[in-house]
Amino acid sequence: MTERVLTGITTTGTPHLGNYVGAIRPAIASSLLEDKESFLFLADLHALIKCSEPEKIQTSTREIAATWLALGLDVNKSVFYRQSDVPEISELCWVLNCMAAKGLMNRAHAYKAAVAANIEEGQDADFGVTMGLYSYPVLMAADILMFGAHKVPVGKDQIQHVEMARDIAQRFNHHFGEVFVLPEAVVDDNVAVLQGLDGRKMSKSYGNTIPLFLPPKKMQKSINKIKTNLLEPEEPKDPDTSTVFQIWQAFASAEQTLEMRKAFTDGIAWGEAKKQLGVLIESHIAPAREKYETLMANPSEIEAALQAGAEKARLHSRALLADVKHAIGIRPLV
Amino acid sequence: MTERVLTGITTTGTPHLGNYVGAIRPAIASSLLEDKESFLFLADLHALIKCSEPEKIQTSTREIAATWLALGLDVNKSVFYRQSDVPEISELCWVLNCMAAKGLMNRAHAYKAAVAANIEEGQDADFGVTMGLYSYPVLMAADILMFGAHKVPVGKDQIQHVEMARDIAQRFNHHFGEVFVLPEAVVDDNVAVLQGLDGRKMSKSYGNTIPLFLPPKKMQKSINKIKTNLLEPEEPKDPDTSTVFQIWQAFASAEQTLEMRKAFTDGIAWGEAKKQLGVLIESHIAPAREKYETLMANPSEIEAALQAGAEKARLHSRALLADVKHAIGIRPLV
Repeated sequence: MTERVLTGITTTGTPHLGNYVGAIRPAIASSLLEDKESFLFLADLHALIKCSEPEKIQTSTREIAATWLALGLDVNKSVFYRQSDVPEISELCWVLNCMAAKGLMNRAHAYKAAVAANIEEGQDADFGVTMGLYSYPVLMAADILMFGAHKVPVGKDQIQHVEMARDIAQRFNHHFGEVFVLPEAVVDDNVAVLQGLDGRKMSKSYGNTIPLFLPPKKMQKSINKIKTNLLEPEEPKDPDTSTVFQIWQAFASAEQTLEMRKAFTDGIAWGEAKKQLGVLIESHIAPAREKYETLMANPSEIEAALQAGAEKARLHSRALLADVKHAIGIRPLV
Repeated sequence: MTERVLTGITTTGTPHLGNYVGAIRPAIASSLLEDKESFLFLADLHALIKCSEPEKIQTSTREIAATWLALGLDVNKSVFYRQSDVPEISELCWVLNCMAAKGLMNRAHAYKAAVAANIEEGQDADFGVTMGLYSYPVLMAADILMFGAHKVPVGKDQIQHVEMARDIAQRFNHHFGEVFVLPEAVVDDNVAVLQGLDGRKMSKSYGNTIPLFLPPKKMQKSINKIKTNLLEPEEPKDPDTSTVFQIWQAFASAEQTLEMRKAFTDGIAWGEAKKQLGVLIESHIAPAREKYETLMANPSEIEAALQAGAEKARLHSRALLADVKHAIGIRPLV
C-alpha cells in the first residue's frame, strides 16, 4: 500500500541551512519514492499563532514555496498546498475541538513552557497566551487527519502532537465509526539537527541562522561568522565539537567527511575550513539558487503551483469532510 | 442605516413554547421591520458541543428550520442559513483564536460552571470539558463578526459572549485595521422567559418543555401537566405565582389577560383554566402547525430554503473573509 506522509512548514521565516538539511532535503527525497505519497503544505494558519506581521507572513510564504520548488519538489508526484487554501481544514478543526479533551491541551509542551515562563516572571499563568497557541494541537490534528496521513516525520519535540492527533482520532472513531486513519510520528535519527552560528540548534527563534539562498559572497560572510575557538592554524582541532565540521558533514560525501576530519586533526586554519565549507555549500546550492531567483521574480508561477496543489488537496479534503459531517449528523435533509 | 441583527438557534432539540415566546416570535417580528436586516442561523456547529447523537442533530435541524419557516419567517427579507454551510465561519474562527486571549475564555460562565461542578464532585477541574465547550465564545465571535452584526438579541446569560466578541474584534482592529463592526448585546426585557411544567424556566435541559407543534390532544395533555397548587374550584387563586397564568399572558391580548386575572380571583378551577389555555394556544398555533407538517413531510423544500440562504450568507462571508485574510497577510502572491 502507498504510504501517506505529511509535512507542514510554518510560514514565518526565510528558509535556512537547518531547514534544508533537517526537513526540506529529506522530505523531497522521500516524495520521489514510488511507495510514498507526500502531502507538503505551507502552514500559514499556524504562522498566525506566532506572527502578527502581515508582510512577514506573505514574504515567507513566497520564499518557502519558491525554495521547495527550486530544490526539485515534483508537484506532479506530491500534493503541495497552502493550508489556508483548504477551508475544510478549519472546518474539521472545529469538529475536532468538540472531540478533544481540554485536559489534553494542558499537557502540550509549548503551552506548558509558556505557563512556566509566566509563573517564573510572576505573571498570571495564561499571560499573553492566545487561544491559537493553546489550540495549536487541534489544528495540527486537523492537518494530519484530513489527509489520512500514516506517517508524520517530526522532530522529537513534535512527537507529542502526533500522539494527540491519534488520541483525538481514536475518540472520534469510537463515537462515530471508523472515519480517521490513526497517524504515527516518525523520528529519523539520521537527519542532522544543524547547529547555528552560535553553536546552538539553528533556529530563527535564536537568530543564529544561515539563510539557504544567500548570494555567494554573503553566504561566505555568514559562514565566516560561525563561532569557533581560539586555536591557531596548525594546532589540531576537534571536529566533533565544531559547528563548522557539523555543517560540513551535512553536505559532504563520506569521503569528503573523512578528508575534513583529517584536516582538522592536521590543524587546518578556521578561515580555511570555513572557506572550504563555503565552496562545498555553493556547489550544492548554486543550481537551485538560480531557479529560486527566477521563481521569486515570477510569483505568478508559484501561485499557480499552489492553486493547482490546493485543488488536488481538496479532492481529498472535500470527501473526508463530507464523511465526517455525515458521521456527526450534519447532513443534507434529503 | 439598516441595522443588522443576528440570532442563532442551537440544533439540539424540538422547538417548544418557551423558544417560541422568547426567541422565535420576537425574531420573526423584528425580521419584518424595514430598518432591520436579520441573519438567522441554525447553529449546528454549536450543537456538536453538547450533543454527540447524529440522529438528534439531524432531526432537530429539520424541526427547527420547519418551525421558523412555518411561523412566517420571510426568507426574502432575511438571511436564513445553516451555520455549517458557511465554511468561512470556521475559517474565521481559527483566525480569531489567534487574537483571543486564553484568559478571556477562563472567565466564560459556561466553562466556569463546568469547573465548579467538577471541583464540587472532587474531580479534576477540566474533567469532561472539551475544547469545543472551552472555545465556544470564539466560534460565537466568528458567527457575529462574520456578518457585521450591530445587534445581537440575547438572554442575560449570553451578554458576556457578545462582549467577548466585541473584545476580540477590538483587538483585531487595533492590530490589523478596522475590519470588524463592534457588536452590541440587546436584552429585551419585554420578552417573556416562559416557565415550564415544573415552574422553573422552560428549557430542554430541565425536561419540562411543552413542544410547540404537538397535535391538539397531546398539547392539551401536556398543558394539563403544568404544576399547580391544591386550591379547590371556587377558591381564589394568585395569578402572579401561577405558571398557567404566566403562559396565558404570553399568548393573550391585554383584554384576555385582564379577564383571566379576574377569573383567577373568582376562583376558576385549575382544570378549566388549563382548558382555556389549550384553546388559546391552539388558536395561535393551528395555522402554523399545518404548514409545519407539510414542510416536515417535504424536507427538500426546507433544504432548498437553507441552500438559498447559505448562498446569500456567503456573499457576505466570502467578502469579509477575504478582507480578514488580506489584513493578516494571507494573500495571493500576485
